[in-house]
This record gives sequence, structure tokens and C-alpha cells, in this order.
Amino acid sequence: MIHHEDSIVAISTPQGSGALGVIRVSGADAISIVDGVFSKDISVAEGYSIHFGQIKRGKQILDEVLATVFRAPRSFTKEDVVEISCHGSPFILREVLGLMLEKGARLAKAGEFTQRAYLNGAMDLAQAEAVADLIASQSAGAHKLAMNQMRGGVSSELKALRGQLLDFTSLIELELDFGEEDVEFADRTQLEALVKEMMSKVQALIESFRLGNAIKQGVPTVIIGKPNAGKSTLLNTLLNDNRAIVSDIPGTTRDVIEDRVVIDGIEFRLMDTAGVRETEDIIEAEGVKRTLKLAHAASLLIYLFDCQTETPEQAATFIQSLELSEDIQVLSIGNKLDKLEDPKTYAQQYDNDISGAYPWIIISAKDKLHMDTFRTLMVDAVNNFSNIQEGQTLISNARHLSALQKAETALYDVQNAMQMGVSGDLLSIDIRTVLHHIGEITGEISTDEVLGNIFSKFCIGK
Amino acid sequence: MIHHEDSIVAISTPQGSGALGVIRVSGADAISIVDGVFSKDISVAEGYSIHFGQIKRGKQILDEVLATVFRAPRSFTKEDVVEISCHGSPFILREVLGLMLEKGARLAKAGEFTQRAYLNGAMDLAQAEAVADLIASQSAGAHKLAMNQMRGGVSSELKALRGQLLDFTSLIELELDFGEEDVEFADRTQLEALVKEMMSKVQALIESFRLGNAIKQGVPTVIIGKPNAGKSTLLNTLLNDNRAIVSDIPGTTRDVIEDRVVIDGIEFRLMDTAGVRETEDIIEAEGVKRTLKLAHAASLLIYLFDCQTETPEQAATFIQSLELSEDIQVLSIGNKLDKLEDPKTYAQQYDNDISGAYPWIIISAKDKLHMDTFRTLMVDAVNNFSNIQEGQTLISNARHLSALQKAETALYDVQNAMQMGVSGDLLSIDIRTVLHHIGEITGEISTDEVLGNIFSKFCIGK
Repeated sequence: MIHHEDSIVAISTPQGSGALGVIRVSGADAISIVDGVFSKDISVAEGYSIHFGQIKRGKQILDEVLATVFRAPRSFTKEDVVEISCHGSPFILREVLGLMLEKGARLAKAGEFTQRAYLNGAMDLAQAEAVADLIASQSAGAHKLAMNQMRGGVSSELKALRGQLLDFTSLIELELDFGEEDVEFADRTQLEALVKEMMSKVQALIESFRLGNAIKQGVPTVIIGKPNAGKSTLLNTLLNDNRAIVSDIPGTTRDVIEDRVVIDGIEFRLMDTAGVRETEDIIEAEGVKRTLKLAHAASLLIYLFDCQTETPEQAATFIQSLELSEDIQVLSIGNKLDKLEDPKTYAQQYDNDISGAYPWIIISAKDKLHMDTFRTLMVDAVNNFSNIQEGQTLISNARHLSALQKAETALYDVQNAMQMGVSGDLLSIDIRTVLHHIGEITGEISTDEVLGNIFSKFCIGK
Repeated sequence: MIHHEDSIVAISTPQGSGALGVIRVSGADAISIVDGVFSKDISVAEGYSIHFGQIKRGKQILDEVLATVFRAPRSFTKEDVVEISCHGSPFILREVLGLMLEKGARLAKAGEFTQRAYLNGAMDLAQAEAVADLIASQSAGAHKLAMNQMRGGVSSELKALRGQLLDFTSLIELELDFGEEDVEFADRTQLEALVKEMMSKVQALIESFRLGNAIKQGVPTVIIGKPNAGKSTLLNTLLNDNRAIVSDIPGTTRDVIEDRVVIDGIEFRLMDTAGVRETEDIIEAEGVKRTLKLAHAASLLIYLFDCQTETPEQAATFIQSLELSEDIQVLSIGNKLDKLEDPKTYAQQYDNDISGAYPWIIISAKDKLHMDTFRTLMVDAVNNFSNIQEGQTLISNARHLSALQKAETALYDVQNAMQMGVSGDLLSIDIRTVLHHIGEITGEISTDEVLGNIFSKFCIGK
């Protein structure tokens, strides 16, 4: 455990007025700092104890509060911590915060409580990062992902394998001590099996990033189609049915152009586009160009066509003409079912013909027909992002992806080196590279720069 | 204590993302509701105990939390209470709140926790009202006022006297039981003294309202003067020097036209106005008319004049011509000291002449000369609002003012009745009226309508 000389303080609840506001103090002097301005003696209070009293500046009562005392190491930061639950007035919180600063606490930097928790061994780096993800989560999917990571999901998968690999390196490096003698402490067959297992695990995690990241950030979903196919109606129908869910999450749609909708716990970032058609109008042509560019950047592309004027085959042909990357999931959706005289026959007519091309369905965005099936198709499409098995850990963090990709390259090097029968000292270097990159994820290897970068993205007070 | 069948729940921290968010549950089933979804058994937990564990919906972990258990009557509401400290994610808070609702809690109405605290006798009505004032307080003055009221300042002044008066009424009403017999249990001289004491207390509280309300709401301060006297410069100088103080209080200046500044713990609502001069221009004349109207509505009027072109006597003459109410405090401020060649002689020249008219001073708003003295004059002017003695309780609540004014009228009636020697039964009716109105303040007398009106102004979760 690293000993931090200074005690830090911050307001840990969101800005603004409310019933309650919490100020958190952590560090060796946390209890004595609060004790000095609190009407009750908490200097020898036990951990996990609560005290009702007044915070005073001299004779002036700043607030009647509940002070909760945590004793190291049984606290979030593993240091002594006091949480002061005040009346939720910005004025009072600022006054109490100011008093703590006067009494010797230092204003906490963004994420500094969590950073101390990490440095003091309360959690590894991937778990610490998940704390911020958890707070930012705005859908059940993103929440589940962050919760799994915070509870050690990603770390535990990697730590055991890293530990085994570390043992092998030690043995190989021991061989080197014997110089010219031809000893082999590290069983090469077992090592090969371990490297293979790590490779498979690392690749699965890399593979999971597309899904994990889409769940965390929201799935970039582009709706394209010819003019008047009903794209805006579809967007409104999707949004209206779910608007309540989205709009009571503060800040969801702020500062973003697209609209967001949560379906089945997965957040979709819906982007409406200009209609696509051949045109000689320069400005319209520019709009079409942008639409096509957006389509290629989508994770989920919804091609919407008017089933009165366009057949599913024509739709499929058009989609193929876009030459999209295989990574993009495509749904081909016929609209205006309400306008068809005989929808049943229409559907049967195409059932066999195009079943193989893209998942498709006929809906009426206007009359809200088959919208549930459509939403299921959207969710299914997301689950097809990666070849993920039930219960597998997903990664969602670009830093982790980068480290895993470097680890993958290093694992290739190890495999090649072993096949080529290179000497132990060279093999050891390659294995150390793998250990380094895996260790970066869990924070067993870290630099101040990396830590600064990670924790600066946290909110103050966490 | 009133028994509430249902348990209520709300998010008690401000909206938005933060490190922490707190959900509060109160009522007979509060502990069992949380116990049903918490990973640890808190069904027999002691009051004032804290438990680290997970909130779960089935197998799904919604959050890792700290649950604090309070047992009736040792809680804010005097009921069983659980406070759940979650990660400050709006998504998580909504999910946990939703789970509590599923398990049988009901969403708390605005102020319902405080209302229960009042109904269960944890505080009287004036104290409960102060909780909302405390949360809304944005200056040291408003904060001190609310804190004093929350700690029973207003109530304690009135309760003892009301209790004594109640005793007298009982004695007078006892006399009535003896019908025609000429008994007098209630000592009329003592009663007269008590009524006089109450009258003096009630009048002092009524008198304190102007100051109390100005401190709570901010002092309406109007700056008037001829065109180019430097009004806007003065406003900017006042605001800039203090802007940091004002602007880091969220929402301070939102939705209000005037600018606010806190000086020495007192909030001033500064209103700049159109220059005042005689004019034939219709539109400008309309502006002048509005300025004068605003001046008459001010609590503090600052008349700013250019000391190069206007003398203090002329300023005083102009102020007198406005025929302001005596309630309005006036400061006469000469500006542009920096332009004078010999400011010292200038000041001495007028020292004796106008000392009796209005507090005055020469400043330079541009060069920030004598601004501290000017600010002191502003604060002094506010303290002159009412003839208040050091340490006297101030009222700041319009509901209290109204009740006190009715009580004052009723006390006059009692005094008159006693002087006229009216019979005990009539005297008793007048005294009951006094008791009623005093009782309204502390809530010993209350109606559902009054309560609904008071608590609906609270925030949710308090």
C-alpha cells in the first residue's frame, strides 16, 4: 500500500440543489480534519460508524449532518475516509468544502479517490476504469458490461494466464544462469500450450471489442433509402415509442446530432440521412455522397424501401451495389405495408427468393405494424457483431484493445521463436513483451502518464 | 406519532452524473423492502449501521452500494429509513428506484420525507419550512437565517408564550363552568402583562420581516442617476469584483433579469436603470417613468451622480423630489473621483453641509476607488431596514408574517376586551384567535391545504 501524505476532499454528488449532498474526505488526516469541526468526538470512532452532529466554523453552524467514518483499510480508497452527508444546498456544500480545505485537506483531482483505491490495491486498473464506465452507463447493456468489468471480469481472465506465463519466464531465465549447460527447466510443450491458450483468449477479447464498444458507446445505426421511403417516419416511430426511456436520462441527446434510442438494453445511435437516388442536381448529389459515406461508417445499416415501388430483390441488389464491408450488419426493410392490398401474399411471394440475402421484413412505420419484429431484428443484428459465446467477457475500452493487439503480435513472435528454436534469452524477451502488454490492462504495469490519462476522465469526487 | 402504512422512496441527490447518488426509503417496510434485494441480511440490522453489498434484481447486480439503516424513531422521519449510496449514474439510480417501486415502495411526493418528520413530531412546521430555505440558501445571511429557524429559533420564541396564554385560557374557561358565581381563577394583571409581552414579541417579529425577507430573497437594489453618471460602470465594478462568488452558485442568475452580488453575506439584486433626465422624447420619457417606478419599489436606492457636474446638495434635492417612502434606504454616491483635481478639498467642502441628508461618499467606479467603503454603506443600509437588536430572531417567511399580523390584530382585541372588562367567554374567544394564529406558525394548528402548499415547494427526495 502506498502511503499518501495528504488528505483529499471533494463534493461527490452531482452539482445543483437536492435533498442531500455528500462531501468525501480521504487520507491519513481525514478523521482528524473532520473531527476538528464536528460537534461530536469522532477521533476514536470505529470504522463503519455514523454520527449525527453539526459542522461548525467557530460558533457558526454550517450544517446539521451525518458523518460516516471508515477506517483504513475498510474503505473505498483503503485509507481513512469520512463521508459527510449535508443538506443538498450548493452554498452549504461549498462552505463545508471550504472549511475542509482550511483545515488542511486538499481539493481532490478528477478520479483521485479511485486512483488511490487502485494504488492502494483495492482494485486493479481495469476495475478502476470500469467505475467511470459504470457511472456513465445509460443502457442496461452498457451497465452490465461495466459492472462485469468492475467486478473483475476482464482482469480475472487475463491475470491467471499472465501469472502462469510469468512462471515460465522465470524458469527460462533460470536456465540462462546455467550458461553453457544444456538444461531446460521450462517444459516447452507446456509453454506452447499456454501460449496457444493465451492467444485464443486474447483473440476472443479483441473480437469482442466491436460488440462491447457498440454496447458501451451506442450502436452507430444509419437509415438510408430512396426519397419518400419513410425514413423520417420510421425514425419518429422508433423514437416516440421509446422517447420516455431516452429523455429522462439527463444529457443523453445533448451535444449530439443523432437521436438515441434504447431497445432491449442496447443503445442505438440513429442517424437519418438524405434520400439516395441518381441526380444531376449538384447539391443533392453532394447529400447523396455524404449519405453513402455515412453508410460505410455504420455498424448497423437499415435500408428502407417503399414496398409499393421497390421489390426486396431490387433492394438487395441496391445494397450489394454499395459494396459494404462485411463488418456492417444490414437490415432490408420494406415500408408502407399499410398501403398494400394483400400483404400476406406479398410476403409469401418473396419468402423463398431472397431469404439468403439480408434479414428482411415488411413494416408500416406509420401504422406501427411489425415494429416489434423489426426491433428484434435490430437487436439480433448487434449480437451478430462478433462471434461471441454466451457468457463471454466483452471488452469495450480502446486502451484495452490496443494492449491486447500488441500482446497478440508479441504472442505470434513467441510462437515463431519457439518454432524456430531460438535461444532462451531471446524467447524470454518476447515473453516479457507479452507480459508487459497484458499487465498494462490490469495495471500491474503502469506509468504516471497512463494513469493521469485514465483518471483525468473521471468526475471530481470519484 | 402518526402511523404511515406505506413506505416512500426517492432519489435524494441532485439530478445528473456524479460519484455518488443516494436513494432514500422511509416507512414501516423500508428495511424489509431493501433487505429483499440486498446481498446481505439487514432484516435485523441495528439502527445507525452501514452495510456494503449488492443491490440485485434476481441474479443481475444493479450496483455495489453502501446501505445505511436507521431504526424508528432515530431517523430523519422518525420512521425506519434506509439510505442507499449508489454510484452516481442516472441509469443506475433509476434502476434501483424502479426496483424499490416493484418491491412495494411508493414514489415520494415533493417534501414528503420532511412532511413525515413534521407529522411524526421530529420538528415543528416552522422548522420544516426552514429545511427548504436552507437548501435554497445562496448567501451566508440567508443560510444563517434558515439555520436559526431550522434549529427552532422562531418557534421557541413563540411556543413558550403560547403555552402560557393557553394556560390562562384554560383558567378563564374554567371560570365559565362556575356559571353565575363570581370567581376569577385567571389573574387579570398577569394576563395583561403576558398579552403585552406577546404583543411586543409579535411586533418585533413583524418588524424583522423586511430585513429577514431581504436577506432571504436578496435586497432589491436600484441604481438611478442622470445619463453618463457611470451607472453601468458601477454595476460592472460591483459584479466583476464579486463575480466569482456569484457565478459558481449554479442557477443564481438564471431566469432573472437583474444581476446578483453577495457582499458580506448579504445578497443584493442589482437593477441598472435608464438615465433620469427631463426630456421631450416620448420613448425616453417612458424609460424615465419606468426608472422612477422601479426606484419606488426598491428597498435600497443608490443615487449615482457625476461629481464634476452635480453637487451633493443637488443630489440630495433631487432625491427629495422623488418623495420616496421612508422605508427605502438611500445612498447618495458621487462618481468620477478620478476626474477631480483635488478630491480631498472637494470632500471637506461638503462634509458639514449635507451630513444630515443621506449617507454619501465619492467614489470612482472606473478606478475602483473607495469601493470598500461604498460596499460597507450598502451593508449598513440593509441593517437599517428594521430596528433590529443584535441576536434577535428574524422571520423571512410570508406565511409567518401573515399569521403574526393576524395574531397582532387579535392581541389588540384581547387588550381592548380586557380594558372594557368584557366577560370571560368573550375574552376566551379572542384569546383562542391569538392561539390559533401563533399555532399556525409552529404547526400546532394546521390544515391539509396549508401542509400541501408548504411541502409541494420542496424538492423531491427531501
